Amino acid sequence: MSENKPESRTISLPRAPSVAGFASVVGKKEGEGPLRERFDEIVADAHAGQKSWEKAESSMLHRALELACARSGLPGGLPGCLLAGDLQNQCAASAYALRDVAAPFWGLYGACSTMSESLCLAAMLVASGHFDSAACATSSHFCSAERQFRFPLEYGSVRTPTAQWTVTGAGCVVLTADGPGPYITRVTPGRIVDAGVKDLSNMGAAMAPAAHDTLSAHFNSTGRGPDYYDVILTGDLGRLGQEILRDLFADDGVDLGANYMDCGVLIYNLKSQDTHCGGSGCGCSASVLSGHFLRGMRDGLWRRILFAATGALMSPTTSLQGESIPSICHAVAIESERC
Amino acid sequence: MSENKPESRTISLPRAPSVAGFASVVGKKEGEGPLRERFDEIVADAHAGQKSWEKAESSMLHRALELACARSGLPGGLPGCLLAGDLQNQCAASAYALRDVAAPFWGLYGACSTMSESLCLAAMLVASGHFDSAACATSSHFCSAERQFRFPLEYGSVRTPTAQWTVTGAGCVVLTADGPGPYITRVTPGRIVDAGVKDLSNMGAAMAPAAHDTLSAHFNSTGRGPDYYDVILTGDLGRLGQEILRDLFADDGVDLGANYMDCGVLIYNLKSQDTHCGGSGCGCSASVLSGHFLRGMRDGLWRRILFAATGALMSPTTSLQGESIPSICHAVAIESERC
Repeated sequence: MSENKPESRTISLPRAPSVAGFASVVGKKEGEGPLRERFDEIVADAHAGQKSWEKAESSMLHRALELACARSGLPGGLPGCLLAGDLQNQCAASAYALRDVAAPFWGLYGACSTMSESLCLAAMLVASGHFDSAACATSSHFCSAERQFRFPLEYGSVRTPTAQWTVTGAGCVVLTADGPGPYITRVTPGRIVDAGVKDLSNMGAAMAPAAHDTLSAHFNSTGRGPDYYDVILTGDLGRLGQEILRDLFADDGVDLGANYMDCGVLIYNLKSQDTHCGGSGCGCSASVLSGHFLRGMRDGLWRRILFAATGALMSPTTSLQGESIPSICHAVAIESERC
Repeated sequence: MSENKPESRTISLPRAPSVAGFASVVGKKEGEGPLRERFDEIVADAHAGQKSWEKAESSMLHRALELACARSGLPGGLPGCLLAGDLQNQCAASAYALRDVAAPFWGLYGACSTMSESLCLAAMLVASGHFDSAACATSSHFCSAERQFRFPLEYGSVRTPTAQWTVTGAGCVVLTADGPGPYITRVTPGRIVDAGVKDLSNMGAAMAPAAHDTLSAHFNSTGRGPDYYDVILTGDLGRLGQEILRDLFADDGVDLGANYMDCGVLIYNLKSQDTHCGGSGCGCSASVLSGHFLRGMRDGLWRRILFAATGALMSPTTSLQGESIPSICHAVAIESERC
């Protein structure tokens, strides 16, 4: 079962779908970071007017969808289908956020890679004409993630220097069959990669090999080098994972260059905001992509972005059972022109 | 955001993918039920030779994939992509089962609807030529589900009469672009439906409205009535949910007829096996479809099956917070001829 698939890992989309609308909603801390001017909405506190952190997360996801759909000129205001996921057990944040939205729903789980997983699948479903449009939405919430994956916040646990900080945020991107772009022109799906890392406080190290696998596959199968893109954007490897990814490519003789960035590093001021290695969570790459980068493409700042969110697929149970952390990275090329 | 989408809910696949291979692996109890002769493999006990129930579930999922791929004549033995999911938190059963399989991986979460969700997405991805083949695989395990969703097994909790029994089992179906069939000819994606049911011991009642929504949409958008199909198969509504679904259709003046069945009712002898309302879990519909029905189609018993697995999208946390249970049902038409 382990033989490598010989053919190309990248799927070209001649009828590349257009990014019709996007939106981001983030938490207070994210709204105090370097990208604060780039998000659509910043909620006042961790509850966002709801009775629980979990419900707050759902309300932010719902709001991001609402904003993105309103900007996309969809017939009837509804997308042809929804692709969504999050970090809560049973992906509850998305299910509860979207239960009043009368559109076909595809529930995804790719941990922090879910935003690019959803964009890959949505791009193919729209490019093939099966849906005229699709909305991709993901979220995470620091408090709902902490109490589920780690410790009650009231303990005030000390974090290790390699740890990341789960972003409170949601992002949504709507794709349509036609439109002025930018377009999802290429899809490079990820395979599961397990490099044997077991340290739950060092997700960057666990996920970097998956990013290396997918980005290498993308470069090899398209003949494009890193310099083809104005921005190469990983999801949330964080500061250490980003360095490991650069090192892995350096070992291959490839320089990722100055255009390589990581959403987890960009979203916080790592020095003043006490987030150690940076942000993580499905909402990290979703809000940074929607808030900062798609906005920038719209404003002509960038023309070609390779977006590669990464996810760690372990659970608290598998870690207690001594398992290592399998990871994945899906990539999409977002370009201002079809090609 | 709640306006209904006017156009058809069903997607026709003129280049309908072929079911190239399928396999099922189930637990001891399932291997003592009415379908015992229909499964490929029956494991000896809940551990299936592994150190934990969670690992046992992964090993069964992996084995089902291995068997289904071996029968599908795939180039290099690997599918073009994998679509998989399960009930474990963070969908860990599938991630760990498939981490050594070097094929693109799409992680799904649709609770017990995951088998039909994966078939819907895989059918569209293969029909559109984005992948030459795809493997759909899901699993569940009574013991891993009980300790995650309910109580430690050691408590010996008494179950209510409306409760269902999580199936220990896995199923896998491989689709290819060409082949002798049967074919996935139609896809009717589900929307999230929340009828307000809060009783975690009555999933059939929570999910039946979602099955009603999707099956009604299928009949209305295709012009096909229930009698078009030799078998209409819901995932795991169980005995009570099955009755509720019949009643909901009766209210519409539609008789689902004798061809309507439910995987959760079929897999156990409800009287002698102490499973109350029947089986549930991602592995229920996956193993019954793969073990009993696709085998039957191959042997000429049935020519047209409408497969509609149902899922309940709550989590233990949302239930503790007083929420109702959102549900979903995706449907695929499996037919011996393209049409």
